[in-house]
Order: sequence, then C-alpha cells, then structure tokens
Amino acid sequence: MSSEETEETLTCLRITLHHPEQKEKQVFRDLSFCENQRMRVDDVVKFGRDVNVCHFTLTDKRVSRIQFALQFFKPFNRSEFGFEIKNLSKKTDLIVNNIELSYLNKVDLPERCIICFGEYQILMEKQGGQSKDYFEICFELASTSLLLENLSFHQPVPESGISYTESPTETDEND
Amino acid sequence: MSSEETEETLTCLRITLHHPEQKEKQVFRDLSFCENQRMRVDDVVKFGRDVNVCHFTLTDKRVSRIQFALQFFKPFNRSEFGFEIKNLSKKTDLIVNNIELSYLNKVDLPERCIICFGEYQILMEKQGGQSKDYFEICFELASTSLLLENLSFHQPVPESGISYTESPTETDEND
Repeated sequence: MSSEETEETLTCLRITLHHPEQKEKQVFRDLSFCENQRMRVDDVVKFGRDVNVCHFTLTDKRVSRIQFALQFFKPFNRSEFGFEIKNLSKKTDLIVNNIELSYLNKVDLPERCIICFGEYQILMEKQGGQSKDYFEICFELASTSLLLENLSFHQPVPESGISYTESPTETDEND
Repeated sequence: MSSEETEETLTCLRITLHHPEQKEKQVFRDLSFCENQRMRVDDVVKFGRDVNVCHFTLTDKRVSRIQFALQFFKPFNRSEFGFEIKNLSKKTDLIVNNIELSYLNKVDLPERCIICFGEYQILMEKQGGQSKDYFEICFELASTSLLLENLSFHQPVPESGISYTESPTETDEND
C-alpha cells in the first residue's frame, strides 16, 4: 500500500443490523462488530449463508446461499462514491426503503437507508471518503427494532414478514 | 444442474472484438472464440491484463490490470435480463456508444452497443434468454474496424485514441 493511500480517507458504509431473535439464534455470530473492515473497490461484497462465497455470512438456515451483494462505484458527475445493492435471493424480496427488489434487481443505495428481508432489518449509512482503491465496512448491532426509530425511511409493506407490534422505543443507543 | 436449467435458454452476450494490431500483437490470444462460455449470474466478469483476477485476459501491457467488469441483472418491470458495465481502469476512459465512463462509473448496456477504450473496439449484442442461473458469453473476432460498420452507434469522441482514417468497408463477414 502506498503512503498516498494511507493518508486518504476511505468511504465507509456503516451497517447496523437487527434480528428479533439474535439473542437466541446468534445469526450474526460470524461478523466482527465495531471494526472498520477494508475492501478493494473492485470487490463485490456478498452477504448470505454460504461461507465459501460470501464475505459476510449470516448463520441462519432461512437465509439464502447468497442473499445480496454490494458494489462500490462512482456516480456520473458526482465527487462522492456510492454503493449499489443487488438482490441475489430467489425466495425473498429485498426492500430498500420502500423499493422492493426481486431476484437480480439492483438499485443505487441512498446515503442512508433501511433494508429489510425476512425478519432482518439493516440500516446502511454512508460516510464519504476520497480513496479510489479501498472502502470500508463497519458493522454495529442494534438490540431494538430499527423500523420504529426510522419510520420516516419506511412505509409498511404488506406480507414482508416484518413485525410492527413491538413497543416503541426512543433510544438512540444503537447509533 | 437441474433438468429444468438445461432446458431453459440462456441470455447470451455476443462480444465481437477488434484491435487494429491483432495480427502482429495477438492481444486476444487467451480468449476462446465462437464458443458459448457459461457464467453464473452472480459472477462479476472481469476483463483486463491480470490473469489472476480476470475471467478474460487481454495480452497487452497497455491494458489495465482490470479494464472493466460486466454483471448480469434484471431491470425493474422487465421480463428480459440485462448487463451492467463498470470501468475499472484509472488511466483509460471506457466509451459505451457515446457515453464516457471514467474510473468506477457504471452504466446499463443497451441491447447492442459499441464499446471503445484505447485502440480496442468491442461490439456487444444481447440475445435474450430465460435462465435465472446462468448466462453465456461468446466471443467473435473482427478483422476490420467495427466503428465504420456501426457509425449510427458512435459519435466521434475527441482524444479517444481511435483512428477514423481506415478505408471504409462494406463487408458483413464479422456478424
């Protein structure tokens, strides 16, 4: 790595994860939390059940072999980099804010968005950086529902399998 | 592979390649021509100089380690699948019809398009298919310039390094 690269800030995607049964099932046991994990910009970062294919694995038989993939890119005429998400699950739609992605659909991620599939809730927040060689991913864990804290990001979607019956919380301890 | 998959037709990307010095330099020597090569839909297909990273290598020191990448996807509300191209070369723009892609820019490929970088000319043509598991790539070699045959696809772009001085041809032997 050149010294030039080490001085540049890296675009970081902060990924806050919530699953209502994380305590019992430990579906996030294979992820490292609160640690910036460096990726190459030409990596396609796959999330899913299959440890042989995915960078980040979810330990849950209900998750697809590859659930979704993220890639880094540069939007036209913009100085900031961005991320694209693609649904790679045949059985489960991926909901990005209020857009439903079927199998192989893709969309550019907003700066901050809530992503849902099955019982999983994921808040993705981008922090800008300059590096053209690497970006970072940093995971955090949310013990309470992200939907209730971020209602403005999410319209209820019928049959998404998401529970809206939890009691409201006003904590911001998951930020 | 299930019997269902073998009966489905596969989306095929026909890639016709031209380099003015192919005869002398054999820049395409590592590619297999006129043969359908099957890819998984979650593969990101990289083209470039680096044999350790790229599915398809161009034997040319002027080509970047990774020049560009293709990925398969399904556009919203469309029955046909499509391809996205991303420029992964820091030093050379990638021109898709008349759109210039800088490093890390991406664009969805039209059904038929001319792609240029340096002295390379590439015609990409999609043939629709149903398979959700695989697609195919098939290479063909063009001995004459693709730009002169496909002028409607391409507006001259200053300083792209492309020569417009070759004598016109009316052959269609490369289709």
